[in-house]
Amino acid sequence: MEEEGATTVSSRVLAQRVGTTAAQVRKDLSLFGTFGTRGLGYEVRSLRERLREILGLAQEWPIALIGAGRIGSALFEYPNLRRRGFEIVTILDRDPRKIGRSWDGVRIRSIDEVGEVIERLRIKVALVAVPASEAQGVVDRLVGCGIRGILNLAPARLRVPDGVTVNEVDLALELEVISYALGARGTVPGEIRQDVTSDP
Amino acid sequence: MEEEGATTVSSRVLAQRVGTTAAQVRKDLSLFGTFGTRGLGYEVRSLRERLREILGLAQEWPIALIGAGRIGSALFEYPNLRRRGFEIVTILDRDPRKIGRSWDGVRIRSIDEVGEVIERLRIKVALVAVPASEAQGVVDRLVGCGIRGILNLAPARLRVPDGVTVNEVDLALELEVISYALGARGTVPGEIRQDVTSDP
Repeated sequence: MEEEGATTVSSRVLAQRVGTTAAQVRKDLSLFGTFGTRGLGYEVRSLRERLREILGLAQEWPIALIGAGRIGSALFEYPNLRRRGFEIVTILDRDPRKIGRSWDGVRIRSIDEVGEVIERLRIKVALVAVPASEAQGVVDRLVGCGIRGILNLAPARLRVPDGVTVNEVDLALELEVISYALGARGTVPGEIRQDVTSDP
Repeated sequence: MEEEGATTVSSRVLAQRVGTTAAQVRKDLSLFGTFGTRGLGYEVRSLRERLREILGLAQEWPIALIGAGRIGSALFEYPNLRRRGFEIVTILDRDPRKIGRSWDGVRIRSIDEVGEVIERLRIKVALVAVPASEAQGVVDRLVGCGIRGILNLAPARLRVPDGVTVNEVDLALELEVISYALGARGTVPGEIRQDVTSDP
């Protein structure tokens, strides 16, 4: 909206943009303090700044990418991570054939350098894109080196100590959300169907 | 659990496995009908079958992958999609240098063949991994050909008609969940901090 030249915005318009209600927008924002002026709405620029602070985006986050395979490569190329404040500053792998190569100027290093690199570059967040069987071992090492936030793309459930945040992207689960939605529209048999129609 | 040899399971054990409460497990399952026997728990095998039906996984879902770039390639290689009932049966792209190649026996076809392929292979679900600027155009075409469910990995908000399900994976958003969690633990300034500490 700032790029579009807007200086103020109402909760109603914000709600339309994100697919919720004006009341929900006001309630959500109120959790973080006082925003906007009754009848005048929100000042776009200051709202944007406050939201960036709340989301922890007032700073840039240097990111370690663990795993230089296909998924790692796709993550590295993923558009607009940098624009949104996340920059992959190091890539770590255990494959000697990959170590020493560079992607767009970022050198792939040995996972054995993880402690040194994370400390030197003050990295707190890692993207994990290793095979599922290796994920827990990699994560234990990362946590031991001071990593506090992990986005996991390996299809493995991870255990981390308190104080470490893990977020998982499981693409099969995301597809199940869709197959469930399609199934609920008529291809599911018997008992279920009675729950979603008014037909006795 | 079935692979581990269990024949019955309690809501308490199920809750532990997924990180929720026994009451929530019972409540969630009750939305879909009658499951289990009070005091005896759930019969593992039949619960599994019922959950598969509910999730629309009693059938296999043939999937069209749109976009044979890095993200598409990572999706194609993503482990255990097939084991969970999703099989990428066609790959479509618009780049003449990619059309005609094969990935693991699946030929990359021109996006112009989309209507014919989707009808012949009875595909209802597509994975969209094209540049953001092309995503809406591609999705309009898919919907026009009968696609009912879309998992979108392009960083673009998509408009679809009623009756079509879209699920989006936005990796920058997933990283923001982490930066928010880390920020809320002490690096966020002033007003916010007062909300999360008891310090006046």
